Amino acid sequence: MDFRSDNTHGCSPEIADALARAGEGTRSSYGRDEITARVRAQCAEIFEHEVEVFPVISGTAGNALSLATMTPPWGSIFCHEDAHIHREEMNATEFFSGGAKVVPVRGANGKIDFEELRREIRLAPVPSCISVTNATEAGTLYSIDEMQAFAATKLPLHVDGARFANAVVATDASPADLTWRRGCDILTFGGTKNGTLGADAIVVFRAELAKELAVRYHRSGHRASKMRLLSVQLEAYFTDELWLRNARHANAMAARLRDGIARVDGVELIQPVDANVLFVRMAKNVAKALEEKGYRFFDWAVFGEDAWRFVTAFDTTEGEVDALLAAIA
Amino acid sequence: MDFRSDNTHGCSPEIADALARAGEGTRSSYGRDEITARVRAQCAEIFEHEVEVFPVISGTAGNALSLATMTPPWGSIFCHEDAHIHREEMNATEFFSGGAKVVPVRGANGKIDFEELRREIRLAPVPSCISVTNATEAGTLYSIDEMQAFAATKLPLHVDGARFANAVVATDASPADLTWRRGCDILTFGGTKNGTLGADAIVVFRAELAKELAVRYHRSGHRASKMRLLSVQLEAYFTDELWLRNARHANAMAARLRDGIARVDGVELIQPVDANVLFVRMAKNVAKALEEKGYRFFDWAVFGEDAWRFVTAFDTTEGEVDALLAAIA
Amino acid sequence: MDFRSDNTHGCSPEIADALARAGEGTRSSYGRDEITARVRAQCAEIFEHEVEVFPVISGTAGNALSLATMTPPWGSIFCHEDAHIHREEMNATEFFSGGAKVVPVRGANGKIDFEELRREIRLAPVPSCISVTNATEAGTLYSIDEMQAFAATKLPLHVDGARFANAVVATDASPADLTWRRGCDILTFGGTKNGTLGADAIVVFRAELAKELAVRYHRSGHRASKMRLLSVQLEAYFTDELWLRNARHANAMAARLRDGIARVDGVELIQPVDANVLFVRMAKNVAKALEEKGYRFFDWAVFGEDAWRFVTAFDTTEGEVDALLAAIA
Amino acid sequence: MDFRSDNTHGCSPEIADALARAGEGTRSSYGRDEITARVRAQCAEIFEHEVEVFPVISGTAGNALSLATMTPPWGSIFCHEDAHIHREEMNATEFFSGGAKVVPVRGANGKIDFEELRREIRLAPVPSCISVTNATEAGTLYSIDEMQAFAATKLPLHVDGARFANAVVATDASPADLTWRRGCDILTFGGTKNGTLGADAIVVFRAELAKELAVRYHRSGHRASKMRLLSVQLEAYFTDELWLRNARHANAMAARLRDGIARVDGVELIQPVDANVLFVRMAKNVAKALEEKGYRFFDWAVFGEDAWRFVTAFDTTEGEVDALLAAIA
Repeated sequence: MDFRSDNTHGCSPEIADALARAGEGTRSSYGRDEITARVRAQCAEIFEHEVEVFPVISGTAGNALSLATMTPPWGSIFCHEDAHIHREEMNATEFFSGGAKVVPVRGANGKIDFEELRREIRLAPVPSCISVTNATEAGTLYSIDEMQAFAATKLPLHVDGARFANAVVATDASPADLTWRRGCDILTFGGTKNGTLGADAIVVFRAELAKELAVRYHRSGHRASKMRLLSVQLEAYFTDELWLRNARHANAMAARLRDGIARVDGVELIQPVDANVLFVRMAKNVAKALEEKGYRFFDWAVFGEDAWRFVTAFDTTEGEVDALLAAIA
Repeated sequence: MDFRSDNTHGCSPEIADALARAGEGTRSSYGRDEITARVRAQCAEIFEHEVEVFPVISGTAGNALSLATMTPPWGSIFCHEDAHIHREEMNATEFFSGGAKVVPVRGANGKIDFEELRREIRLAPVPSCISVTNATEAGTLYSIDEMQAFAATKLPLHVDGARFANAVVATDASPADLTWRRGCDILTFGGTKNGTLGADAIVVFRAELAKELAVRYHRSGHRASKMRLLSVQLEAYFTDELWLRNARHANAMAARLRDGIARVDGVELIQPVDANVLFVRMAKNVAKALEEKGYRFFDWAVFGEDAWRFVTAFDTTEGEVDALLAAIA
Repeated sequence: MDFRSDNTHGCSPEIADALARAGEGTRSSYGRDEITARVRAQCAEIFEHEVEVFPVISGTAGNALSLATMTPPWGSIFCHEDAHIHREEMNATEFFSGGAKVVPVRGANGKIDFEELRREIRLAPVPSCISVTNATEAGTLYSIDEMQAFAATKLPLHVDGARFANAVVATDASPADLTWRRGCDILTFGGTKNGTLGADAIVVFRAELAKELAVRYHRSGHRASKMRLLSVQLEAYFTDELWLRNARHANAMAARLRDGIARVDGVELIQPVDANVLFVRMAKNVAKALEEKGYRFFDWAVFGEDAWRFVTAFDTTEGEVDALLAAIA
Repeated sequence: MDFRSDNTHGCSPEIADALARAGEGTRSSYGRDEITARVRAQCAEIFEHEVEVFPVISGTAGNALSLATMTPPWGSIFCHEDAHIHREEMNATEFFSGGAKVVPVRGANGKIDFEELRREIRLAPVPSCISVTNATEAGTLYSIDEMQAFAATKLPLHVDGARFANAVVATDASPADLTWRRGCDILTFGGTKNGTLGADAIVVFRAELAKELAVRYHRSGHRASKMRLLSVQLEAYFTDELWLRNARHANAMAARLRDGIARVDGVELIQPVDANVLFVRMAKNVAKALEEKGYRFFDWAVFGEDAWRFVTAFDTTEGEVDALLAAIA
């Protein structure tokens, strides 16, 4: 049973159906097709705002393209020190931006500490924007009020929403309230970790940024000529609230796992569990025994040598969670 | 009827089937899955050589990642002046390489003139590699002997094989003879223009280049976490020679169109037609009339204001070609 | 006797005097000093236009900083195929611009052919600016009318004026007529090849470009903290028309050498000699004999194996020229 | 009286003399001259090691060129969070390296905390090198033992020695012991802050790095064609230990100022004073009064709103220090 990551899972049946039919007929290439236009319309409705949408095959592409468009090469981008853009993307943001600086900011539970943030902004040569991951890498959340505090810095705001759906269902805030109404100019809207088979969307709320982003998109090789491969997935993902249903389920499975773990001695939750990611402290031999029983999950060096990460997905079942809990106990 | 480009077409039924089933089960992410391993094995067999394979969503990504790995930022890359990397990719190669120079070389019929090439190599500050498009943008071919002449320059060789399948079936040369046996270190092996729905493969013949390319792949956002989206397409593409069958058909349709056009007065072929791309000179009002009848194709400024490009695809039918010929006549 | 290049020579006595006194007293750093302000005022007078001035230690820095400010990373910069930025600077322009494309344009006598230029502009993905070297690498000139023809393209214009002084005295045009009155936004105003000891000036005619250039200047390490090292040289260079006097002398020496060579059998001038650079075709053994007598000059591969370049400088004497002529004869 | 920075001061008389004579005669360009060769020999003697030397006009150039040579674009460079490369150089290192990551590490008194360093190394995607400023921006020092602790990380080491001379005289360690004997591959050897008029030297201890650095040097525009402008300064700087004498004097003046300030009520030293930089906490109105009397110094936001920086230089006099002390008291 696989708790390694939400990206080891496959896709929702609705996505599979869309992919099966995606190759029918001829279509204008490079995103000038009707499906991509419909995805744009869906996002405009979801966000209650005019948007431009760029489908991408990875969150790394989404983040790096967005941030490169929001900062000059001499600017500083502020993010949590455990943000994906800082720890996991091999300097994609520095690359796409032509050498902008990513400034890590500390803070508990994977969330940016606002006092630290203000200090770093004050000392940076050219402060340019903030990148906020919501839900965070640590499986925690920023509330509408916290998003408002970012907006108060007056710096442009990027939201890394690899798990944006999980944040929306967990906070019960509207997508608009977690983005452009709180100063967000561009959102990396994740699909891959939540039921698509490799399709995320860059959602641009400020029209003047979209023109430059379009050029960066093309010259980075991310503008697929047969865009429908990505667009059909996104269309299905936004249809009948599949994106929200999937996230609601993944979060519920995480809560079930969290509640179960809380009752086990010798196994400790490291962070609050607000979305679909859990960090657990347990002895190495316990972890090893679990792995031998066929449970799969990752060790997590950020939290030390006895820390482990479990992720629940859109298709994790109650049975799998309960089996894992039984095995842990 | 759509003769605009091979990328406005959809995909082969085999690819559609593969996509429909791609989302089943959990799999290791980022290309560490079994499907991607099988694609590697397929390529090793096709090329009779150990290879490393990196699936990508676009030929631009394939070219830029390959060339960035083959040249230092201060190097010069030589290509035909009408090469895709020079005319169409918005400086992707300059971007990925950190500022290498792309040096355009002249030559008739979309093919590099060897005397011009040698002159440019002699004058360049740091000659680093040659990028050869085969089949060319102009729909012409390099033979094994011509490939040998590139090898004789002693510079590392990249092949942009967006239409490599068309070159293989047209020259009847083995894939090995058109690549590593003639000094090619990395091939961008096209699938998208020949029946996949957006999946090309970077094929690396020199193992020591693969390690660096892997890092560039990740940090450019092209290493899909759910790699199977691309890998299943490539697996189907290489199974039972689908890639060769598709190309053979496309080339045959182009030949049928070429032969038909040759019989029409007032319409002239601009270049030899060796693969699946045709350039035609005809009066603007003729072109306009065709478009009004529902035939779609592109104007082509490289060859002047009365030049037009027609592309045949893996699924272009004889009936479509004959209808177009009738309309032209 | 040294005819290798104008940069093997030292400096004018006025420059030496300025350097000797440059270290006196304390001064605001990073160009906020009074000397640098005076240089700005001198340039404003020379060009009859408000300007911003950035002293630099090399022409390569001047060109790359200017062009990076004038083009986005996805733009194309057009220049003659033998331009210094294309042949000699190891991709400095590609580096500083974050990967812009330098498009070489052909043309006789080191000068851009306008028909070729218009074709390249038409075919480029994103045409962004033209870089014109005046006087050219080949020692030829663009007249006011030719500069006007560049202006007519409507593309922003950069002038590489490593030998701008030589062009001004040779054409007898005003500095304004060879720059901003013909659409030039930024000039790399050479001093090093004409009597300073390593001080050129970027002269910006469009105020809105200066702000971005200032940041690029700093982050490329070219904004000297003790700016006076460069500024005192430029101040002396612009005082009492030293820059024009030096160039007039160098051009006169080149004319004397040209006229003398024209009278020698078996030695042929390859290009017109309009400034202070001469290209000569002569047998290898003749060249070797000259070198053995102590005359120094460079071979010049652009023009073939029996081509040689002679450069006269601000301090080349009539005696040196006559001695060289005697030796050649 | 000027305590703003060591770069607002001019140069030592020996440097002025060298500059006055620098323009004599013709010399090979681009650093192929005899003076530059002699500077290399001087550095080899100072460091008791074969070296390659690249004169530069700024410390920013020295740091960025060095670090770009020591790290791939996907690497992480570790430095103190108040290092010049992180706070002051507008992302020069990110620019020159093609997008490497600069990872700020905390630590008291401007010095890297080793536990924090080890944590950041462990979490970085691709740890590549450490940049150590000695003497630090905070005017403190790393001892030989501390340098040894950096060496123990096994990561390649760069030393930003903008004030290296001040560190050498303050620690009484040999230049070799503070560099290559403790794992340092490249040193940015400062001259500008210590008596030259704008000449620092990149000193490379690992021969295989020098070749790549030479190319980066050229294509960044830092390889002056009339190299002697920089080389003559460095030659004079290293002759008869001028560099050590200047630093000894500057440090002594700082100690005198420090001891005097320690006796004044209401004015507090923020950090230990080991070299020639002092950070002082005093009320804003006191600072303002000092400025009105003609004393010049900078406010220093890193330490808060009532923090000020005073720098003593190679030519600061005892009289100036005593006058300042009197004014403060």
